[in-house]
Amino acid sequence: MPTVIAVDAMGSDRAPKPEVEGAILACRHHDVRVLLIGREPQIREELDREIAKHPTVGNLPIEIVHATEVIGMGEKAATAVRSKRDSSMRVGLRLVREGRAAGFVTAGNTGAAMATAKMVLGALPGVDRPALAAVFPTSVGKAAILLDVGANVDCKPQHLEQFAIMGEIYSRSIFGMSKPKVGLLSIGEEEGKGNELTREAYTLLRQLPLNFLGNVEGRDLYNGNVDVIVCDGFIGNVALKVSEGLVSAVRYLLKESLKSTISSQVGFLLSRRAFEDFKKRLDYAEYGGAPLLGLKGVCIVGHGSSNSTALKNAIRVAAQFADTRINEKIEKGLKSIPPRREPPPGPGMQPGSAPI
Amino acid sequence: MPTVIAVDAMGSDRAPKPEVEGAILACRHHDVRVLLIGREPQIREELDREIAKHPTVGNLPIEIVHATEVIGMGEKAATAVRSKRDSSMRVGLRLVREGRAAGFVTAGNTGAAMATAKMVLGALPGVDRPALAAVFPTSVGKAAILLDVGANVDCKPQHLEQFAIMGEIYSRSIFGMSKPKVGLLSIGEEEGKGNELTREAYTLLRQLPLNFLGNVEGRDLYNGNVDVIVCDGFIGNVALKVSEGLVSAVRYLLKESLKSTISSQVGFLLSRRAFEDFKKRLDYAEYGGAPLLGLKGVCIVGHGSSNSTALKNAIRVAAQFADTRINEKIEKGLKSIPPRREPPPGPGMQPGSAPI
Repeated sequence: MPTVIAVDAMGSDRAPKPEVEGAILACRHHDVRVLLIGREPQIREELDREIAKHPTVGNLPIEIVHATEVIGMGEKAATAVRSKRDSSMRVGLRLVREGRAAGFVTAGNTGAAMATAKMVLGALPGVDRPALAAVFPTSVGKAAILLDVGANVDCKPQHLEQFAIMGEIYSRSIFGMSKPKVGLLSIGEEEGKGNELTREAYTLLRQLPLNFLGNVEGRDLYNGNVDVIVCDGFIGNVALKVSEGLVSAVRYLLKESLKSTISSQVGFLLSRRAFEDFKKRLDYAEYGGAPLLGLKGVCIVGHGSSNSTALKNAIRVAAQFADTRINEKIEKGLKSIPPRREPPPGPGMQPGSAPI
Repeated sequence: MPTVIAVDAMGSDRAPKPEVEGAILACRHHDVRVLLIGREPQIREELDREIAKHPTVGNLPIEIVHATEVIGMGEKAATAVRSKRDSSMRVGLRLVREGRAAGFVTAGNTGAAMATAKMVLGALPGVDRPALAAVFPTSVGKAAILLDVGANVDCKPQHLEQFAIMGEIYSRSIFGMSKPKVGLLSIGEEEGKGNELTREAYTLLRQLPLNFLGNVEGRDLYNGNVDVIVCDGFIGNVALKVSEGLVSAVRYLLKESLKSTISSQVGFLLSRRAFEDFKKRLDYAEYGGAPLLGLKGVCIVGHGSSNSTALKNAIRVAAQFADTRINEKIEKGLKSIPPRREPPPGPGMQPGSAPI
């Protein structure tokens, strides 16, 4: 039985094209069935175009589920989630909640995706704050994950503890790491270094049954020394966006420098393949989007600029997330935390039973 | 009258070579006199070697000031500062305090430099926490600064307010910006976005007589949209180290990709000049080190891997810092802040009158 994945067909900047193409690629390469959610006529048109080009596409297990509304990239998450009850995001996540899909993928508005997923699916028992985990390449080839990058700001040490457990399980299940190295993002390696939050979190993390390395620094994100990096969502979001900005700047400067002389232009042409390889290695698209961890369900958020490869990979990851039963493992893992007197409140978290 | 700059000759990873060469370059190109601080025999040997190669070096205004102790890169700042009373850092900063040098430059242990400078020089009136400002290139060519990156953790909104004033004055004085754009590093552009600290700091910053843009995001560090970016030292330090790590990873991946085929190796040779230009643009060395702002005196901290160009530029910046009377401007600027009922305490700050 193929795993059913609901895909927000209206999410990405160039929707629904990358979504339709991504669904086709995913169905060709993986054992999945895809439900494309959104405005039916638009999706149908794109799908028919593909079928006209490659008639075998008509035989793939792809269906369209109509949703009348679309949440735009610029829309405020809170407002959009409240007002648009028939958005492609909400319809897709409802399918997950009802068990008609095993997971949901969107390349749309990240804030709205997180808010809708929290509202529609709710958090797993033991999870105060679901976390968005960024997956990125390191210079040694393997992927690392950083969480939270989804803006759970002003986190308490207990939240970081939960992030560590969820991230470690994800790393094992999706990347097949046997004993992923877990680090706490701080500003010095010794135990006493950092701020109030990291010092307290350090004490909690080192008591967990994890391969905890202790504090790691910003430079460890990309060197492959650590597989799972845990931090407050404000820090994680800044780290992620600084990285995106720097990669853009580096590409721009490299292009500018290469434009400067004829010999370097010739050089650039000769090394074009190498540059494509280089770009691919830096490309988030290869890594299948950012999972939201700690929800009663599977939700993967891709970049707005996602192409068909990124969507194909996100669909594959969503299926793998469901098939390897990550959420069951997370629930079990969180039970291993010793109970404390004052459980932290979960601000920003909506109950799963909210009206949908 | 040349401006006298004291240089820690024992600071960098390959000290005293880059320091001696940097001093020579600085004296040749700028109106400065350099005091090289550290173990006299070692510095003398290096200087004599240079004089043997280029006899005119003997005529440059370079002197050696002996200091018996050296603070290592791996040493804990607090311990080193307390125990090594005749370190090159302490001797150099004492010369600044006594008015015998207009500024101090070191490429040594950043933590120790900050702690020693705070202890020996003390903070300017109105400054609760001196801040380390990182200077870096943007894709549009001009430099931007980020502060604090020196690990003033768990900052209060009032600290960020002071950072904004100090950073803005620095940007005007050193980079000649007429109305530098000041941004608050956060995770969304609207006023309400961010964490507790940034939301409160926003309210304070927008009341200052500055060109305040509001919240900026991590990706704005390198795109040239903002000239002065203000944040808590934990965030700034993470942002800086993430950037360093990413640049290393990018260089490595680019090299790996270029090694892959013959045509790209030929391409690389043809575009070598472009790569050198590219590396130079990414290179912190061009920007003259990180100033410590808010001290009664001038102190510039360079990277441990500083080369002679980086040290030359740091010496130039130290002289410019002193000559343009940045500290007087900062003192005046801070007086423009409306007084509040509870002045924040300045943890981590030592009185300037501590025994030296």
